[in-house]
Amino acid sequence: MFVENRLHHQLQSIEPILEETSLHLLQAGGKRLRPVFVLLSGSFGVYDRDLLASAAVAIELIHMATLVHDDVIDNADMRRGRPTVKANYGNRLAMYTGDFIFAQALFVLSELPDKNLHKQLSSAIERMTIGEIEQIRDLYNFDQQMRKYLVRIRRKTALLIEMSCMLGGVVSEAGARHVSALRRFGYYAGMAFQITDDILDFTATAQQLGKPVGSDLRQGNMTAPTLFTLCEKEVGDELRELLARVNAGDAFKNRDALERAVELVKSGSGVARSQALANRYLEKAHAALNTLPETRERGILLAMSGFISSRDR
Amino acid sequence: MFVENRLHHQLQSIEPILEETSLHLLQAGGKRLRPVFVLLSGSFGVYDRDLLASAAVAIELIHMATLVHDDVIDNADMRRGRPTVKANYGNRLAMYTGDFIFAQALFVLSELPDKNLHKQLSSAIERMTIGEIEQIRDLYNFDQQMRKYLVRIRRKTALLIEMSCMLGGVVSEAGARHVSALRRFGYYAGMAFQITDDILDFTATAQQLGKPVGSDLRQGNMTAPTLFTLCEKEVGDELRELLARVNAGDAFKNRDALERAVELVKSGSGVARSQALANRYLEKAHAALNTLPETRERGILLAMSGFISSRDR
Repeated sequence: MFVENRLHHQLQSIEPILEETSLHLLQAGGKRLRPVFVLLSGSFGVYDRDLLASAAVAIELIHMATLVHDDVIDNADMRRGRPTVKANYGNRLAMYTGDFIFAQALFVLSELPDKNLHKQLSSAIERMTIGEIEQIRDLYNFDQQMRKYLVRIRRKTALLIEMSCMLGGVVSEAGARHVSALRRFGYYAGMAFQITDDILDFTATAQQLGKPVGSDLRQGNMTAPTLFTLCEKEVGDELRELLARVNAGDAFKNRDALERAVELVKSGSGVARSQALANRYLEKAHAALNTLPETRERGILLAMSGFISSRDR
Repeated sequence: MFVENRLHHQLQSIEPILEETSLHLLQAGGKRLRPVFVLLSGSFGVYDRDLLASAAVAIELIHMATLVHDDVIDNADMRRGRPTVKANYGNRLAMYTGDFIFAQALFVLSELPDKNLHKQLSSAIERMTIGEIEQIRDLYNFDQQMRKYLVRIRRKTALLIEMSCMLGGVVSEAGARHVSALRRFGYYAGMAFQITDDILDFTATAQQLGKPVGSDLRQGNMTAPTLFTLCEKEVGDELRELLARVNAGDAFKNRDALERAVELVKSGSGVARSQALANRYLEKAHAALNTLPETRERGILLAMSGFISSRDR
């Protein structure tokens, strides 16, 4: 794929170790969801393959840079079934790898003519950063409102998908109404995507996830399934008590409490309620799509958003 | 100062803690050497205050972002006599503060019309990152050539000062020959600046430095004074032996060895030879300046480079 070659090319460095760490991350795969959204969204105006590829590569690089930094922060050892850059090369190299990839994104962004795009992407990075800070701040916060979770995942995930669709529209000069529809589609699809991710963290197998089941809960990250379960009458109280114990004690001693907590969330109503929430976002995504011309690419965007919420990993 | 206000403005965020950490760093001061170089270098073409201020702010933001990340890596608790962001707010917030400041640099860069500048700055960030990786890799490497040190400080420090002078020239459309002279001046002055910094780490007082004397050596960072001392006949052998002991043992047990190593470097010929090295770079900086028109600003650049090597902190 054209974009894949460009990504590969952009991560070459005069410093072998930096290239090795970056390619380690690149070759770990990933769905390249954001580049595909850019390219498809670019079909509603004047399709310029090179310009759209630049936008797609820039977005994926920003995504990759935040992934490396998040793995440092989360102390994560596995991602996509492979050791993280942090686990293989240590925190220091992981941080500089992230900085390097940010710099490469800046390089590619210079290909895009519209200055406003730079400002919007800059603002997006700021808000993504805030999303991560909020996530840290709200670890083990059992009493947070669902709204807080939604704002957090909007910043953490939906925003960059929204930007991907917006970018495709702007770069191909699709016109303000189309760009606005693409943007809304990206936002709603991005929300559905993250909620589905948070559900899979409980319902998929460790093999499917490439990391332990219930990783979010192990880190104290309260996602939709947990928050809904906490609202249940008796089950909620037991879960709250278990999580408080985990938070207070050391991880090893509380392994049993954690396993029980994961079981409670899996068996309660939280998963089904989260699925209903994801579906509501998907419906809004489809409504936004319906205002766009009925093209083949619109059909593919529709199919992709469907895949997002029915995937099993 | 105009640039200072712009910096302050650019570090405002919708997230209070991000603004707090960034302003903490901003208010810790610093010489704003790079912005001043941008503005002065901008005087050899068509002086556009707003455009030059954007360039100056972007460069200083990139500098600040790397400072925050370096403090995480170096585990540094003090900078400019104040606690670092890392020390006050922890590693996680420090990393995201750096990412936020990078994003703000991207925002400001969008004001600059020349696309090539983005690419050059992106490449500069890459090479700065490599400089930091090399520094980590060469900790306690007693047998490294002086050339290795020079390549490292070029990337670590001289490059961004070179970029500052180049940027001023390009933004004001000063013409290729002037831009080339400014660039060379920045590079040579930057080298002299870092060598002087590395000397001061031994010769200044802890109060002047705002951190302990011999911090580089304590971290295993072999700088010019140490490398020159290692080349001395008997003193070099003793220093090598002391540093090997420090590297092998724990920091607390080897405090005496470290104090003795700092003393050896201070009393040997390494400081004087480093000063001579810095002076050779300064002379080259002056030669580059001499090819520029004899303006008031050229005189200020000359004076600044003189200050760089005679400062005591």
